Amino acid sequence: MANRPPAEIGAPLAEVDTPALIVDLDALERNMRALPEKIAGRPVQLRPHSKTHKSPIIALKQIELGAVGVCCQKVAEAEALVAGGVRDILVANEVVGSIKLHRLAALARHASIAVCVDDAGNIADLQDAAAQFDARIKVLVEIDVGAGRCGVTSSEAALALAQVIAQSKFLTFDGLQAYQGGAQHLRSYDERRQAIERAARFAAQTKALIEANGIPCPRVTGAGTGTYAFEAASSVYTELQCGSYIFMDADYNRNLDASGNAAPEFEQSLFIWTTVMSRPTAERAVVDAGLKALSVDSGLPMVADLPDVVYARASDEHGKLEVRQPVEGVDVGDKLRLIPGHCDPTVNLYDWYVGIRGNRVECLWPVAARGAVT
Amino acid sequence: MANRPPAEIGAPLAEVDTPALIVDLDALERNMRALPEKIAGRPVQLRPHSKTHKSPIIALKQIELGAVGVCCQKVAEAEALVAGGVRDILVANEVVGSIKLHRLAALARHASIAVCVDDAGNIADLQDAAAQFDARIKVLVEIDVGAGRCGVTSSEAALALAQVIAQSKFLTFDGLQAYQGGAQHLRSYDERRQAIERAARFAAQTKALIEANGIPCPRVTGAGTGTYAFEAASSVYTELQCGSYIFMDADYNRNLDASGNAAPEFEQSLFIWTTVMSRPTAERAVVDAGLKALSVDSGLPMVADLPDVVYARASDEHGKLEVRQPVEGVDVGDKLRLIPGHCDPTVNLYDWYVGIRGNRVECLWPVAARGAVT
Repeated sequence: MANRPPAEIGAPLAEVDTPALIVDLDALERNMRALPEKIAGRPVQLRPHSKTHKSPIIALKQIELGAVGVCCQKVAEAEALVAGGVRDILVANEVVGSIKLHRLAALARHASIAVCVDDAGNIADLQDAAAQFDARIKVLVEIDVGAGRCGVTSSEAALALAQVIAQSKFLTFDGLQAYQGGAQHLRSYDERRQAIERAARFAAQTKALIEANGIPCPRVTGAGTGTYAFEAASSVYTELQCGSYIFMDADYNRNLDASGNAAPEFEQSLFIWTTVMSRPTAERAVVDAGLKALSVDSGLPMVADLPDVVYARASDEHGKLEVRQPVEGVDVGDKLRLIPGHCDPTVNLYDWYVGIRGNRVECLWPVAARGAVT
Repeated sequence: MANRPPAEIGAPLAEVDTPALIVDLDALERNMRALPEKIAGRPVQLRPHSKTHKSPIIALKQIELGAVGVCCQKVAEAEALVAGGVRDILVANEVVGSIKLHRLAALARHASIAVCVDDAGNIADLQDAAAQFDARIKVLVEIDVGAGRCGVTSSEAALALAQVIAQSKFLTFDGLQAYQGGAQHLRSYDERRQAIERAARFAAQTKALIEANGIPCPRVTGAGTGTYAFEAASSVYTELQCGSYIFMDADYNRNLDASGNAAPEFEQSLFIWTTVMSRPTAERAVVDAGLKALSVDSGLPMVADLPDVVYARASDEHGKLEVRQPVEGVDVGDKLRLIPGHCDPTVNLYDWYVGIRGNRVECLWPVAARGAVT
């Protein structure tokens, strides 16, 4: 049921059919190298989040550049990564229900698998599944460091779960999941800094309590593209889970730096390639990329190369552009690049990355874990 | 690259893995029968829009119940429909670029294909593609009846295009595409009625002008689930393109009837089946269906069976529920049904429909045109 790739290797960009998920390979590679360089010398390891790209090909490139492994959110994503050759995976999420726990435990026979918990009953189920497969699974207790989503809300509750895990034959307590997802898109630098200070304080206090009770807590993992510098400098976090830095998106590009400027640290490398399919009036053009070609949950996409053209409205299969000044390149049949509002759920709509270098298709990479929701 | 189905045929609903796209087959079948009954006696034919379901299995059931064929929006959708046995398809959209036009013309050798145009250059390209495959294609001129998207904005412009089509050896002018997409979700009955009155007036006037110039205009096609009764009663429209009526969604369920009540004409048959994966506090539960399991472009999903539980926020792989009263069924491991905010882009996230009857899995239908964006 996978769709055909929208291009052939070697074809010029102009011949790539639309809508397509295109990647500027030079920019992607610069981003993939830039993050390890930015954290060099800090006592943290990089474990990029693969929920952004859903591609073992990209995961293996990140590992080649020094990452210790990758994160994912779903067992089905972990399965796709292991199938593609990745051998060290943190499912940075709770996994609930016997079907998924059996799959996770079975996978742990073939790769190093870690998972998060925030519930004692879930630990018992995880232990049962691991026992059935004689599998060893690393377990992190998730603490809610401010995102208000999953995770226990007190250090004492985290300790209680760590004690249960530490007693298990098949499970190893490996530390704390302390991801402050709510801080990634706080617009001002100071808001993000303060949010991570609070997160790091709670993580440090929880780690201290657990270790004071005789249980080693080697790992404190979290961080994203919007805040990683704060976690890296915290002396608390040992591992960074940045995902979006490789692609970026319109929402991340709006984050402000310490001087109050929107000056993204990473380059936009991911675009939606789209065709003008209608030009009913001078002020309006319609492109073939709508809600099924890009996710609008974090705002509409931007038109990449035409400052006077604004993507104003998305319907299922159409994007309505406002042409604010007469401009070349928005006639019927013209193709243009959009910067998606939110990279992760946009990638999840496609079967193929079309990798572009020097205006030519260099690679077609499957979005291997596309739709891997279970 | 397709994902495994989340269940086995015959399994109880409780064993379906999550998130999953589940369909209440009894409700689906009642909806599929209800629309033809509602328009019985009206001089209109039903051509349901398959962009909602992306499934030739469902399309063929609609045709069995009297539909003359189906619509779709993309050539790749038409390819999936023809591969699944559908033989009469209107691509209710402009198709631009030689790659897509060649595919469309080739497909017209294997099925009755109609397509929309709003540009003379595009007609020339379509004519060339049809000639290359010695294919016959029906062509409708799209007029903008108020949605402000594609379509020519004057009757004279429509006539000019109809004249070009009428001269083509391979193309047949078949009428007008007159879909008022902007009217479907106008909340009040009177707003919707007035919008369709205006649309029908412009369509009638355009049809009259074309016919006064000696070109028959047999078809005026449009309408959706929110307005079909008005088009059916208009004496102008000959064909209805409703799509969502088979599934419904939270957004359509908010439309008001003539008495000012939200009393949907069709039943909710489509749900997202999801698991509570975390219950950090009494007031908060977290489910495993987020932005990659449901589209939030038209608002958040509703919790189907628990009135005191509200889906308050979606992140990539999580949904945060507010538990407003103590209630059973939202503990870790519990599964519940969500009503998606917008059915079409939600369906597009899944590879499988899980058809449920009597609390048991009766069928697994591929979402055959999932991701068919080109």
